[in-house]
Amino acid sequence: MRVLGVDPGLTRCGVGVVEGRPGRPCALVAYYVVYTDPEDDLALRLLHLDRSLGDLVSEHRPDAVAVERVFSQHNVRTVMGTAQASGVAVLAGARAGLPVTTYTPSEVKAAVTGSGQADKKQMTTMVTRLLRLPEPPKPADAADALALAICHVWRGGTRSKLAEAAQRARRGGTR
Amino acid sequence: MRVLGVDPGLTRCGVGVVEGRPGRPCALVAYYVVYTDPEDDLALRLLHLDRSLGDLVSEHRPDAVAVERVFSQHNVRTVMGTAQASGVAVLAGARAGLPVTTYTPSEVKAAVTGSGQADKKQMTTMVTRLLRLPEPPKPADAADALALAICHVWRGGTRSKLAEAAQRARRGGTR
Repeated sequence: MRVLGVDPGLTRCGVGVVEGRPGRPCALVAYYVVYTDPEDDLALRLLHLDRSLGDLVSEHRPDAVAVERVFSQHNVRTVMGTAQASGVAVLAGARAGLPVTTYTPSEVKAAVTGSGQADKKQMTTMVTRLLRLPEPPKPADAADALALAICHVWRGGTRSKLAEAAQRARRGGTR
Repeated sequence: MRVLGVDPGLTRCGVGVVEGRPGRPCALVAYYVVYTDPEDDLALRLLHLDRSLGDLVSEHRPDAVAVERVFSQHNVRTVMGTAQASGVAVLAGARAGLPVTTYTPSEVKAAVTGSGQADKKQMTTMVTRLLRLPEPPKPADAADALALAICHVWRGGTRSKLAEAAQRARRGGTR
Protein backbone atom coordinates (compact mmCIF):
# COMPACT_ATOMS: atom_id res chain seq x y z
CA MET A 1 0.00 0.00 0.00
CA ARG A 2 1.09 3.54 -0.67
CA VAL A 3 0.54 6.08 2.12
CA LEU A 4 0.85 9.85 2.09
CA GLY A 5 1.68 11.18 5.56
CA VAL A 6 1.14 14.80 6.57
CA ASP A 7 2.74 16.57 9.53
CA PRO A 8 0.44 19.59 9.50
CA GLY A 9 1.71 23.13 9.91
CA LEU A 10 0.72 26.46 8.47
CA THR A 11 4.25 27.81 7.94
CA ARG A 12 5.86 24.42 7.22
CA CYS A 13 3.78 21.36 6.35
CA GLY A 14 5.71 18.11 5.95
CA VAL A 15 4.51 15.54 3.42
CA GLY A 16 5.99 12.06 3.05
CA VAL A 17 5.00 9.25 0.70
CA VAL A 18 6.06 5.65 1.33
CA GLU A 19 5.11 2.27 0.01
CA GLY A 20 5.11 -1.00 1.90
CA ARG A 21 3.27 -3.77 3.67
CA PRO A 22 2.76 -4.44 7.39
CA GLY A 23 5.85 -6.11 8.87
CA ARG A 24 8.03 -5.42 5.83
CA PRO A 25 10.45 -2.56 5.22
CA CYS A 26 8.88 0.50 3.61
CA ALA A 27 10.28 2.21 0.54
CA LEU A 28 10.53 5.97 0.13
CA VAL A 29 8.50 7.39 -2.75
CA ALA A 30 8.99 11.12 -2.14
CA TYR A 31 8.94 13.82 0.50
CA TYR A 32 8.22 17.53 0.50
CA VAL A 33 7.73 20.50 2.74
CA VAL A 34 4.98 22.95 1.75
CA TYR A 35 5.83 26.46 2.94
CA THR A 36 3.50 29.42 3.33
CA ASP A 37 4.55 32.98 4.14
CA PRO A 38 3.55 34.00 7.70
CA GLU A 39 3.07 37.56 6.43
CA ASP A 40 0.45 36.47 3.91
CA ASP A 41 -3.28 36.53 4.48
CA LEU A 42 -4.63 33.41 6.25
CA ALA A 43 -6.95 32.71 3.30
CA LEU A 44 -4.06 32.74 0.81
CA ARG A 45 -1.97 30.49 3.04
CA LEU A 46 -4.72 27.88 3.46
CA LEU A 47 -5.47 28.05 -0.26
CA HIS A 48 -1.81 27.44 -1.14
CA LEU A 49 -1.67 24.51 1.28
CA ASP A 50 -4.93 23.09 -0.07
CA ARG A 51 -3.75 23.25 -3.68
CA SER A 52 -0.28 21.87 -2.88
CA LEU A 53 -1.69 18.90 -0.94
CA GLY A 54 -4.33 18.30 -3.62
CA ASP A 55 -1.58 18.27 -6.27
CA LEU A 56 0.58 15.84 -4.27
CA VAL A 57 -2.39 13.49 -3.72
CA SER A 58 -3.15 13.57 -7.47
CA GLU A 59 0.49 13.03 -8.37
CA HIS A 60 1.22 10.13 -6.00
CA ARG A 61 -2.21 8.47 -5.91
CA PRO A 62 -1.82 7.04 -2.38
CA ASP A 63 -4.18 4.36 -1.03
CA ALA A 64 -4.53 6.23 2.24
CA VAL A 65 -3.64 9.47 3.99
CA ALA A 66 -2.28 9.68 7.55
CA VAL A 67 -2.31 13.00 9.42
CA GLU A 68 -0.82 13.86 12.80
CA ARG A 69 -3.49 14.63 15.37
CA VAL A 70 -3.17 18.11 16.86
CA PHE A 71 -3.57 18.72 20.58
CA SER A 72 -4.32 21.95 22.33
CA GLN A 73 -1.34 21.27 24.63
CA HIS A 74 0.93 22.19 21.69
CA ASN A 75 2.52 25.62 21.41
CA VAL A 76 -0.45 27.92 22.05
CA ARG A 77 0.86 30.64 19.75
CA THR A 78 0.83 28.39 16.69
CA VAL A 79 -1.75 25.74 17.61
CA MET A 80 -4.68 27.40 15.83
CA GLY A 81 -2.76 27.59 12.54
CA THR A 82 -1.63 23.99 12.98
CA ALA A 83 -5.21 22.87 13.61
CA GLN A 84 -6.45 24.74 10.55
CA ALA A 85 -3.66 23.21 8.46
CA SER A 86 -4.60 19.75 9.77
CA GLY A 87 -8.21 20.36 8.75
CA VAL A 88 -7.05 21.23 5.24
CA ALA A 89 -4.84 18.09 5.15
CA VAL A 90 -7.67 15.77 6.27
CA LEU A 91 -9.92 17.43 3.71
CA ALA A 92 -7.39 16.91 0.90
CA GLY A 93 -7.52 13.17 1.51
CA ALA A 94 -11.29 13.07 1.96
CA ARG A 95 -11.90 15.07 -1.19
CA ALA A 96 -9.89 12.51 -3.16
CA GLY A 97 -12.11 9.77 -1.72
CA LEU A 98 -9.25 8.29 0.35
CA PRO A 99 -9.43 6.89 3.86
CA VAL A 100 -7.84 9.38 6.27
CA THR A 101 -6.47 8.29 9.65
CA THR A 102 -5.10 10.56 12.37
CA TYR A 103 -2.37 9.44 14.78
CA THR A 104 -1.07 11.02 17.95
CA PRO A 105 2.65 11.88 18.05
CA SER A 106 3.11 9.12 20.68
CA GLU A 107 1.53 6.49 18.43
CA VAL A 108 3.87 7.45 15.60
CA LYS A 109 6.93 7.48 17.87
CA ALA A 110 6.02 4.09 19.31
CA ALA A 111 5.48 2.60 15.84
CA VAL A 112 8.78 3.86 14.47
CA THR A 113 11.17 3.81 17.47
CA GLY A 114 9.46 1.45 19.91
CA SER A 115 9.06 4.29 22.42
CA GLY A 116 6.27 6.86 22.66
CA GLN A 117 8.76 9.24 24.29
CA ALA A 118 11.38 9.27 21.53
CA ASP A 119 12.92 12.65 20.72
CA LYS A 120 13.13 14.32 17.31
CA LYS A 121 16.72 13.17 16.66
CA GLN A 122 15.86 9.54 17.43
CA MET A 123 12.82 9.75 15.10
CA THR A 124 14.91 11.15 12.26
CA THR A 125 17.55 8.47 12.80
CA MET A 126 14.96 5.68 12.67
CA VAL A 127 13.17 7.09 9.61
CA THR A 128 16.54 7.34 7.81
CA ARG A 129 17.40 3.76 8.78
CA LEU A 130 13.97 2.24 8.08
CA LEU A 131 13.77 3.76 4.61
CA ARG A 132 17.47 3.00 4.00
CA LEU A 133 18.19 6.57 3.00
CA PRO A 134 21.83 7.62 2.39
CA GLU A 135 21.30 10.61 4.72
CA PRO A 136 18.54 12.09 6.95
CA PRO A 137 15.62 13.73 5.10
CA LYS A 138 16.21 17.45 4.60
CA PRO A 139 14.48 19.61 5.68
CA ALA A 140 13.88 17.74 8.92
CA ASP A 141 10.14 18.65 8.85
CA ALA A 142 9.68 15.89 6.28
CA ALA A 143 10.92 13.18 8.67
CA ASP A 144 7.79 13.37 10.84
CA ALA A 145 5.57 13.09 7.79
CA LEU A 146 7.51 10.01 6.61
CA ALA A 147 7.20 8.52 10.12
CA LEU A 148 3.42 9.00 9.98
CA ALA A 149 3.25 7.22 6.65
CA ILE A 150 5.41 4.33 7.93
CA CYS A 151 3.23 4.12 11.07
CA HIS A 152 0.11 3.80 8.95
CA VAL A 153 1.60 1.11 6.68
CA TRP A 154 2.75 -0.97 9.65
CA ARG A 155 -0.56 -0.70 11.41
CA GLY A 156 -2.11 -1.87 8.17
CA GLY A 157 -4.67 0.93 8.19
CA THR A 158 -6.30 -1.03 11.03
CA ARG A 159 -7.91 1.83 12.83
CA SER A 160 -9.37 3.23 9.66
CA LYS A 161 -10.88 -0.15 8.77
CA LEU A 162 -12.35 -0.52 12.25
CA ALA A 163 -13.78 2.98 12.08
CA GLU A 164 -15.33 2.28 8.70
CA ALA A 165 -16.88 -0.96 9.94
CA ALA A 166 -18.28 0.83 12.99
CA GLN A 167 -19.72 3.51 10.79
CA ARG A 168 -21.28 0.99 8.42
CA ALA A 169 -22.81 -0.78 11.41
CA ARG A 170 -24.25 2.47 12.78
CA ARG A 171 -25.76 3.28 9.43
CA GLY A 172 -27.36 -0.13 9.12
CA GLY A 173 -25.05 -1.24 6.34
CA THR A 174 -26.32 1.35 3.90
CA ARG A 175 -22.86 2.51 2.94
CA MET B 1 -22.30 44.45 -0.68
CA ARG B 2 -23.36 40.92 0.10
CA VAL B 3 -21.48 39.14 2.88
CA LEU B 4 -21.53 35.52 3.95
CA GLY B 5 -20.64 35.14 7.64
CA VAL B 6 -19.51 31.87 9.17
CA ASP B 7 -19.53 31.01 12.88
CA PRO B 8 -17.31 27.94 12.59
CA GLY B 9 -18.04 24.71 14.41
CA LEU B 10 -17.58 21.07 13.58
CA THR B 11 -20.90 19.84 15.02
CA ARG B 12 -22.87 23.01 14.26
CA CYS B 13 -21.57 25.62 11.83
CA GLY B 14 -23.67 28.79 11.51
CA VAL B 15 -23.89 30.55 8.15
CA GLY B 16 -25.58 33.91 7.62
CA VAL B 17 -25.90 35.97 4.44
CA VAL B 18 -26.79 39.67 4.55
CA GLU B 19 -26.73 42.56 2.14
CA GLY B 20 -26.10 46.21 2.95
CA ARG B 21 -23.83 49.22 2.95
CA PRO B 22 -21.78 50.80 5.76
CA GLY B 23 -23.99 52.96 7.98
CA ARG B 24 -27.24 51.66 6.48
CA PRO B 25 -29.50 48.88 7.78
CA CYS B 26 -28.61 45.41 6.47
CA ALA B 27 -31.11 43.06 4.87
CA LEU B 28 -31.29 39.35 5.59
CA VAL B 29 -30.66 37.13 2.57
CA ALA B 30 -30.60 33.71 4.24
CA TYR B 31 -29.22 31.76 7.16
CA TYR B 32 -28.36 28.12 7.78
CA VAL B 33 -26.75 25.79 10.24
CA VAL B 34 -24.59 23.01 8.79
CA TYR B 35 -24.60 19.98 11.08
CA THR B 36 -22.17 17.07 11.13
CA ASP B 37 -22.53 13.91 13.18
CA PRO B 38 -19.99 13.76 16.07
CA GLU B 39 -19.92 9.98 15.66
CA ASP B 40 -18.77 10.24 12.06
CA ASP B 41 -15.17 10.10 10.92
CA LEU B 42 -13.38 13.49 11.05
CA ALA B 43 -12.66 13.26 7.31
CA LEU B 44 -16.35 12.78 6.46
CA ARG B 45 -17.36 15.64 8.73
CA LEU B 46 -14.88 18.10 7.21
CA LEU B 47 -15.85 16.95 3.72
CA HIS B 48 -19.54 17.54 4.43
CA LEU B 49 -18.78 20.99 5.83
CA ASP B 50 -16.54 21.84 2.87
CA ARG B 51 -19.19 20.84 0.34
CA SER B 52 -22.01 22.58 2.19
CA LEU B 53 -20.07 25.85 2.49
CA GLY B 54 -18.95 25.60 -1.15
CA ASP B 55 -22.58 25.12 -2.21
CA LEU B 56 -23.77 28.10 -0.14
CA VAL B 57 -21.02 30.33 -1.58
CA SER B 58 -22.00 29.27 -5.13
CA GLU B 59 -25.69 29.78 -4.40
CA HIS B 60 -25.46 33.22 -2.78
CA ARG B 61 -22.42 34.65 -4.63
CA PRO B 62 -21.31 36.95 -1.79
CA ASP B 63 -18.76 39.73 -2.35
CA ALA B 64 -16.87 38.73 0.76
CA VAL B 65 -16.70 36.08 3.48
CA ALA B 66 -16.32 36.86 7.20
CA VAL B 67 -15.26 34.12 9.63
CA GLU B 68 -15.03 34.23 13.41
CA ARG B 69 -11.45 33.97 14.62
CA VAL B 70 -10.87 31.02 16.94
CA PHE B 71 -8.81 31.35 20.09
CA SER B 72 -7.15 28.64 22.11
CA GLN B 73 -8.87 30.05 25.21
CA HIS B 74 -12.16 28.54 23.92
CA ASN B 75 -13.48 25.25 25.28
CA VAL B 76 -10.40 23.01 25.08
CA ARG B 77 -12.41 19.88 24.36
CA THR B 78 -13.90 21.27 21.16
CA VAL B 79 -11.37 23.93 20.14
CA MET B 80 -9.45 21.70 17.74
CA GLY B 81 -12.59 20.80 15.82
CA THR B 82 -13.65 24.44 15.78
CA ALA B 83 -10.22 25.48 14.46
CA GLN B 84 -10.38 22.81 11.75
CA ALA B 85 -13.88 23.94 10.79
CA SER B 86 -12.68 27.56 10.63
CA GLY B 87 -9.86 26.50 8.31
CA VAL B 88 -12.40 24.85 6.03
CA ALA B 89 -14.60 27.98 6.13
CA VAL B 90 -11.73 30.33 5.27
CA LEU B 91 -10.75 27.95 2.48
CA ALA B 92 -14.29 27.89 1.05
CA GLY B 93 -14.13 31.65 0.56
CA ALA B 94 -10.55 31.65 -0.72
CA ARG B 95 -11.28 28.88 -3.21
CA ALA B 96 -14.12 30.97 -4.66
CA GLY B 97 -11.65 33.84 -5.10
CA LEU B 98 -13.38 35.96 -2.44
CA PRO B 99 -11.74 38.20 0.17
CA VAL B 100 -11.94 36.50 3.56
CA THR B 101 -11.71 38.49 6.80
CA THR B 102 -11.59 37.07 10.32
CA TYR B 103 -13.03 38.92 13.31
CA THR B 104 -12.68 38.26 17.02
CA PRO B 105 -15.90 37.69 18.98
CA SER B 106 -15.32 41.05 20.74
CA GLU B 107 -15.07 42.93 17.44
CA VAL B 108 -18.37 41.42 16.30
CA LYS B 109 -20.09 42.14 19.61
CA ALA B 110 -18.85 45.73 19.58
CA ALA B 111 -20.00 46.27 15.99
CA VAL B 112 -23.49 44.88 16.60
CA THR B 113 -24.29 45.84 20.22
CA GLY B 114 -21.81 48.63 20.96
CA SER B 115 -20.17 46.50 23.66
CA GLY B 116 -17.41 43.93 23.26
CA GLN B 117 -18.75 42.17 26.38
CA ALA B 118 -22.32 41.60 25.17
CA ASP B 119 -23.85 38.21 26.01
CA LYS B 120 -25.45 35.76 23.61
CA LYS B 121 -29.00 36.90 24.34
CA GLN B 122 -28.14 40.55 23.72
CA MET B 123 -26.46 39.60 20.43
CA THR B 124 -29.50 37.66 19.26
CA THR B 125 -31.81 40.53 20.22
CA MET B 126 -29.72 43.04 18.26
CA VAL B 127 -29.38 40.80 15.18
CA THR B 128 -33.17 40.30 15.19
CA ARG B 129 -33.74 44.04 15.51
CA LEU B 130 -31.07 45.14 13.00
CA LEU B 131 -32.34 42.78 10.32
CA ARG B 132 -35.97 43.61 11.23
CA LEU B 133 -36.82 39.91 11.60
CA PRO B 134 -40.26 38.95 12.94
CA GLU B 135 -38.58 36.62 15.46
CA PRO B 136 -35.04 35.63 16.54
CA PRO B 137 -33.17 33.40 14.06
CA LYS B 138 -33.68 29.71 14.82
CA PRO B 139 -31.52 27.79 15.52
CA ALA B 140 -29.67 30.38 17.58
CA ASP B 141 -26.32 29.27 16.10
CA ALA B 142 -27.21 31.25 13.00
CA ALA B 143 -27.42 34.56 14.91
CA ASP B 144 -23.64 34.74 15.45
CA ALA B 145 -23.03 34.11 11.75
CA LEU B 146 -25.46 36.90 10.83
CA ALA B 147 -23.74 39.21 13.33
CA LEU B 148 -20.38 38.47 11.66
CA ALA B 149 -21.81 39.34 8.26
CA ILE B 150 -23.36 42.59 9.59
CA CYS B 151 -20.04 43.47 11.28
CA HIS B 152 -18.20 43.06 7.99
CA VAL B 153 -20.71 45.16 6.02
CA TRP B 154 -20.54 47.97 8.55
CA ARG B 155 -16.78 47.96 8.68
CA GLY B 156 -16.89 48.17 4.90
CA GLY B 157 -14.42 45.33 4.49
CA THR B 158 -11.82 47.84 5.69
CA ARG B 159 -9.42 45.44 7.24
CA SER B 160 -9.48 43.17 4.23
CA LYS B 161 -8.74 46.10 1.90
CA LEU B 162 -5.88 47.24 4.14
CA ALA B 163 -4.49 43.73 4.23
CA GLU B 164 -4.67 43.45 0.45
CA ALA B 165 -2.94 46.79 0.01
CA ALA B 166 -0.21 45.77 2.45
CA GLN B 167 0.26 42.52 0.59
CA ARG B 168 0.43 44.27 -2.77
CA ALA B 169 3.02 46.66 -1.34
CA ARG B 170 5.13 43.80 0.01
CA ARG B 171 4.99 42.06 -3.35
CA GLY B 172 6.07 45.16 -5.21
CA GLY B 173 2.68 45.65 -6.83
CA THR B 174 2.81 42.40 -8.79
CA ARG B 175 -0.66 41.32 -7.70
